[in-house]
Amino acid sequence: MQFTIRQIASLIGAEIEGDDTQPIHMLAKIQDAKPGQISFLSNPKYENFIYDSKASAVIVSKNFEPKEKVPATLLRVEDPYNSFTILLEEYHKFISFQRSGIESPSFIGENSKTGDRIYRGAFSYIGKNVTIGNDVKIYPNCFIGDNVTIGDSTILHSGVKIYDGTRIGQFCVIHAGCVIGSDGFGFAPQEDGSYRTIPQMGHVIVGNHVDIGANTVIDCATMHGDATRIGNGVKLDNLIQIAHNVEIGDHTVIAAQTGISGSTKIGKGSTIAGQVGIAGHLVFGDKTRMAAKSGLIKSYPDGNIDLMGAPAMPIKDYLRAYAVFRKLPDLNARLKELEEKVVNLPTFDKRS
Amino acid sequence: MQFTIRQIASLIGAEIEGDDTQPIHMLAKIQDAKPGQISFLSNPKYENFIYDSKASAVIVSKNFEPKEKVPATLLRVEDPYNSFTILLEEYHKFISFQRSGIESPSFIGENSKTGDRIYRGAFSYIGKNVTIGNDVKIYPNCFIGDNVTIGDSTILHSGVKIYDGTRIGQFCVIHAGCVIGSDGFGFAPQEDGSYRTIPQMGHVIVGNHVDIGANTVIDCATMHGDATRIGNGVKLDNLIQIAHNVEIGDHTVIAAQTGISGSTKIGKGSTIAGQVGIAGHLVFGDKTRMAAKSGLIKSYPDGNIDLMGAPAMPIKDYLRAYAVFRKLPDLNARLKELEEKVVNLPTFDKRS
Amino acid sequence: MQFTIRQIASLIGAEIEGDDTQPIHMLAKIQDAKPGQISFLSNPKYENFIYDSKASAVIVSKNFEPKEKVPATLLRVEDPYNSFTILLEEYHKFISFQRSGIESPSFIGENSKTGDRIYRGAFSYIGKNVTIGNDVKIYPNCFIGDNVTIGDSTILHSGVKIYDGTRIGQFCVIHAGCVIGSDGFGFAPQEDGSYRTIPQMGHVIVGNHVDIGANTVIDCATMHGDATRIGNGVKLDNLIQIAHNVEIGDHTVIAAQTGISGSTKIGKGSTIAGQVGIAGHLVFGDKTRMAAKSGLIKSYPDGNIDLMGAPAMPIKDYLRAYAVFRKLPDLNARLKELEEKVVNLPTFDKRS
Repeated sequence: MQFTIRQIASLIGAEIEGDDTQPIHMLAKIQDAKPGQISFLSNPKYENFIYDSKASAVIVSKNFEPKEKVPATLLRVEDPYNSFTILLEEYHKFISFQRSGIESPSFIGENSKTGDRIYRGAFSYIGKNVTIGNDVKIYPNCFIGDNVTIGDSTILHSGVKIYDGTRIGQFCVIHAGCVIGSDGFGFAPQEDGSYRTIPQMGHVIVGNHVDIGANTVIDCATMHGDATRIGNGVKLDNLIQIAHNVEIGDHTVIAAQTGISGSTKIGKGSTIAGQVGIAGHLVFGDKTRMAAKSGLIKSYPDGNIDLMGAPAMPIKDYLRAYAVFRKLPDLNARLKELEEKVVNLPTFDKRS
Repeated sequence: MQFTIRQIASLIGAEIEGDDTQPIHMLAKIQDAKPGQISFLSNPKYENFIYDSKASAVIVSKNFEPKEKVPATLLRVEDPYNSFTILLEEYHKFISFQRSGIESPSFIGENSKTGDRIYRGAFSYIGKNVTIGNDVKIYPNCFIGDNVTIGDSTILHSGVKIYDGTRIGQFCVIHAGCVIGSDGFGFAPQEDGSYRTIPQMGHVIVGNHVDIGANTVIDCATMHGDATRIGNGVKLDNLIQIAHNVEIGDHTVIAAQTGISGSTKIGKGSTIAGQVGIAGHLVFGDKTRMAAKSGLIKSYPDGNIDLMGAPAMPIKDYLRAYAVFRKLPDLNARLKELEEKVVNLPTFDKRS
Repeated sequence: MQFTIRQIASLIGAEIEGDDTQPIHMLAKIQDAKPGQISFLSNPKYENFIYDSKASAVIVSKNFEPKEKVPATLLRVEDPYNSFTILLEEYHKFISFQRSGIESPSFIGENSKTGDRIYRGAFSYIGKNVTIGNDVKIYPNCFIGDNVTIGDSTILHSGVKIYDGTRIGQFCVIHAGCVIGSDGFGFAPQEDGSYRTIPQMGHVIVGNHVDIGANTVIDCATMHGDATRIGNGVKLDNLIQIAHNVEIGDHTVIAAQTGISGSTKIGKGSTIAGQVGIAGHLVFGDKTRMAAKSGLIKSYPDGNIDLMGAPAMPIKDYLRAYAVFRKLPDLNARLKELEEKVVNLPTFDKRS
């Protein structure tokens, strides 16, 4: 990457204060930046770094008033953090565009079509009747089953496995080792104590702008025609389990190692922390927030609520109960003392 | 898939009511079914759908008495759900039989034998001295180490990794990304605070009719000659951790993200929910049931018990205790009030 | 493997009692050992097995005084278990040395260098500008991104995925399906409720003698120049989640399914049990010990502490509180009884 400060200012719509001709080839934190790098100042507690920073340019707020002379060129914007994020994205695109073409050997089945500017890494496998959009990057050792659809500009990192019939939208990033479309966990108990596996014939539909973390698993729906659905803009962390027929609303964020059981629905804009477990067939409304390690066994369909505990309850109730839990030995002692006091009190016959 | 209704009736031993000549090419839920599809009615609350269903045939109970005219052909059986499951299995077999042959490039080492009607996907790897039965399907990007044995009709989905010496039975389904036979987690602490890795030389034995979910890991036993054992008919969900020398009894079902530590034994016919953690060297008898998120730190060798909590206890005890936990702030307030009351009581000198 | 007893005695510095010419080709537990095998006696409760053992040799303590005649040759050492571990390691090395050479097809990009005696399995992928040391073993279906460095004698089991820029030390063992260097989970909330992905540009640095379990995930740091750091001698079990910018001190051991959130620092010589969850931006000093399923939401920077519970507290406090938790229904009943008693006490007007 090599841009001038002027080019970058134009990209993020910044006002320039200082020399705008120097080249920028990297982004860095303000305390680490070197000449040729650009940084940003958003949190006031890092302000001191700006006066010594070796960065060639620093993105700052429109209202920033330096207390001393700043050696770097200043780029003034509304929201420095957001502007820096835009640059990070540009940088990332630039890096990822370095991968293109078809490495050999790779495999593609009958009647499968791929778009323009695609990357197909060595040892990647594309089944039959697959449709893949433009600018898609398929890293080495990926497996894409039959009848899969993948939208434009989606990236599949190495070793991703996509079962037959899965549909993935545009601008998604699927991290290494993810499995999408594996069989749901369904078994019919038999009279002899054994189980008959219920074949899972549905599929998975992943929206646009979805990120899925490494080694996360999303099972397919049970019945033909049904789908496990991941809404637009959903962000899933690593090692998450999404069971069959689950539906996750748009722009919901879920942290690592959380598991959601079959047929549960999560509303839009929800936030689920790490290692949460959610039972099956529940419904949670929009903007539901679950604290780490919560265990959900009942629905909260109205949404806009903070939940915690296992079994979970509203977070305030949990924290108040847990505060007393910590003092239980003391509480027990107080109760005992009281019991003794009361026993030692004289008894009166009320009738007397 | 294309059968007549008569052929399907014969497969599930059903009595036919109506036209038995129409072709069936797909299975579907009663509310979604279209002409050419077959469905079932098991749960009475779905009965209303049968009167409008577009399905060509519906499997119903022997005792089903329609309140109105049903347009579909009826197939009467003892247990409609079970019969439908049989059809699902047939359909699944049909689909999976579409994969066969040896795709190129794939790798097979010296002295390895494969049975008839095998599928070996592109980029799959079979080591030395491997024995693979008939009708086995090895999807792309699988790794099978040296001296592995795999029984008839077992399916390895894409990216499964099997370490040296593992033995897998017949009719198993191993989902994408599973790892079987990785080193157990054993380290000998040294005087300087470091650890020496204890090489793990045992192996894993997986029974027949075992299903293993995506990205689940089963470690090998520590000592040569020992095995981590997964019994017949065991069903493991996704992202489960099975440590070295664990033994899981026949027909036990374990939900996603549960972890079992080294050398623990689980009895037959047990049911373990999701995100359960079980300490090492414990013994659980047959038909042990553990609620989601339980943490087991002691043995319950007699089995036939429901456990919950972390640390776990009998489920009734846990739920009763947790019911009070919720009210702890109230309980604390009551105690405080009582303390004040008792303090305000007049004191008597008993001697007086 | 085939050594004489004398060669083995010399390897572990043992005094020999008995015939030292017999060949040894395998290690085994004392109760299972057969002729041609060597075992050890460390735990006195296994002493009875030594008098019947078929082992050709048994490693015992310098101070061991047999009560009967022992058929096997005795090898006397300071610490029998430790000496046996050394033999296990030798055996393991011997086994792993059987893999060498470059299988075909495999992929290596421009400007990448590999050392001597390397194993590159079929379908393994090495990107550009990669530097790989001597005696490294890369199993089939591994992916190694651009600009990665791997030190001498490190083993990557099948299907390991290493993102661009990762640095891995010497004598590491990375188990199947591991992902190292995947993007950290960082998203900037936008005004419309959606999230903008913050590209992750840092990398991961793994020290020497690190073991990483199957399907474990380690994310890269957010900023260029930063790293997620795994110290020397760290042992990570299976299915662990290590988020961006985490630092784990030397010789720390972490059990399966634990998750550590972004930027948290774990001190040296710590022990973290299974299914622990640790929030982000926390600091734990050296020799911190966390019980299974703990949930950490505050720092304990002084280290040398045992923690338990979710939210976690010192283990003694947790266990004392949990002991009362179990009795909460009883406690509640006692409180009720007391309330009734106090109500029934006569009230006095103190002024009287």
